[in-house]
Amino acid sequence: SLHYIGQKASKVLEDSRAMVASLINARPEEIIFTSSGTESDNLAIKGVAYKNKKKGNHIITSAIEHHAVLEPCKRLEKEGYEITYLPVDRTGLINLNELENAITDKTILISIMFANNEIGTIEPIKEIGEIAKSHDVFFHTDAVQAFAKIPLDVQEMNIDLLSASSHKIYGPKGVGMLYIRDGGKGKKGGKYIEPLMEGGGHENKMRPSTENVPGIAGFAKAVEIAKNELHIEAERLTKLRDKIINTITTNIEHCYLNGHRTKRLPNNVNLGFSFIEGESILLSLDAEYI
Amino acid sequence: SLHYIGQKASKVLEDSRAMVASLINARPEEIIFTSSGTESDNLAIKGVAYKNKKKGNHIITSAIEHHAVLEPCKRLEKEGYEITYLPVDRTGLINLNELENAITDKTILISIMFANNEIGTIEPIKEIGEIAKSHDVFFHTDAVQAFAKIPLDVQEMNIDLLSASSHKIYGPKGVGMLYIRDGGKGKKGGKYIEPLMEGGGHENKMRPSTENVPGIAGFAKAVEIAKNELHIEAERLTKLRDKIINTITTNIEHCYLNGHRTKRLPNNVNLGFSFIEGESILLSLDAEYI
Repeated sequence: SLHYIGQKASKVLEDSRAMVASLINARPEEIIFTSSGTESDNLAIKGVAYKNKKKGNHIITSAIEHHAVLEPCKRLEKEGYEITYLPVDRTGLINLNELENAITDKTILISIMFANNEIGTIEPIKEIGEIAKSHDVFFHTDAVQAFAKIPLDVQEMNIDLLSASSHKIYGPKGVGMLYIRDGGKGKKGGKYIEPLMEGGGHENKMRPSTENVPGIAGFAKAVEIAKNELHIEAERLTKLRDKIINTITTNIEHCYLNGHRTKRLPNNVNLGFSFIEGESILLSLDAEYI
Repeated sequence: SLHYIGQKASKVLEDSRAMVASLINARPEEIIFTSSGTESDNLAIKGVAYKNKKKGNHIITSAIEHHAVLEPCKRLEKEGYEITYLPVDRTGLINLNELENAITDKTILISIMFANNEIGTIEPIKEIGEIAKSHDVFFHTDAVQAFAKIPLDVQEMNIDLLSASSHKIYGPKGVGMLYIRDGGKGKKGGKYIEPLMEGGGHENKMRPSTENVPGIAGFAKAVEIAKNELHIEAERLTKLRDKIINTITTNIEHCYLNGHRTKRLPNNVNLGFSFIEGESILLSLDAEYI
């Protein structure tokens, strides 16, 4: 907007964009704000799939992705796309050889989560990025769980598209972001991704709607706090994580850890208790105000 | 969620839904929350178009819709849909005969805005609803400008889908809603609309993403305030509107009113000034803190 109040809001928006970009070693113009991680995932996957359908119709993902990745893939499958759902081992890791073998000349996109939302397993993102790059396939990662919890670097890791969500890092609900390498500009000119919604030309023409400036500012503030504390906090939480895992698995019978012992988010503990229903544990813990 | 805090949030969400529904004489299960009016428009138009493509590929809208309606229509046009853009008269009104004549056996949707976002003209929504109903065509209205400003009744007006936005009624940004008659259930069973995004099963499986509970609660509060004051406020604003129109057009030369004199939102004044650029007026007003 031309007027003073609009200029002020615009500055907050662009400062927020720069802050979010700085956390993952991206440029501000490569960040667009959305309403959620789900929207970011939908935009990344369907946006790349629809825009590149002449190039190919094959997408590779994993069997343990969040619904926001799996369900768009299922929809694309109904529309004629071919989806490979890579299996994972018992710790939740994909196999890099299986990934590379799955790539065909029809493959346009690899979408593998940075870290799993239930068991916290951290996938070998840098290696996936190298494979994607060497085969000239776009690489999207749902980083909703990992963003601002562990260091992410889209350059070093060859990530083309990265989804994150504000409320997972204690920012406001209703805000997400999508990192889009080069703002969606392809190597031969033109865009390699198309928007999910049409309307005004907001967010680099990738995401129309009046910008949710207060929500975005809150998200950026959460990023700023996380950025300053990331290394200390990850170390602190890893110690607490390991302490709770060790204490419970040592002291309680028929208890086991789900996921990977070390390739694991600092803030994730996922334990199984044989012979007991999860719901009854949840309700009992709730009664203790946990 | 099963736990106490989740139950509390769920109650806030459902109370908010009931409040928003009550303003337009809808049932709570007919309201889904979105991130914006733009998203609601995209969901309504593309959701009905894609789901009903076997039934027909023709959509009728007007030439003066918001971008959030026109741009999805243009996208559908590229995908093989036929769009009729009804012209409007110099006050901004569509012609009901032209509307009825445009309907063919391929017509699946009519999308006409409740009131225009620039000139405030209020379209003959009840009459459009009757025409749509008599031809068994879905009727969507972008009511972003009219919602909570003038009385809307989806039953009396035969509206099947209605978009609204929170921040246009002084609620938080980043929240919108879509009224979907019967929650999307068709007369012969099955759904007559499909979602824009896939993910978790939130919002009656029509709109995945963790619900933005604080934003939705703020939207509902704005609706509650507007509902209590609607008639008094509309009357008060209409008087002020007419006073400013009369004062300016009487006292300033080369000034004229855009839009309709009486079929006009209470809070809308749109004046043209011959021989002067709009931008320079805006900047001069801004310098006066207007």
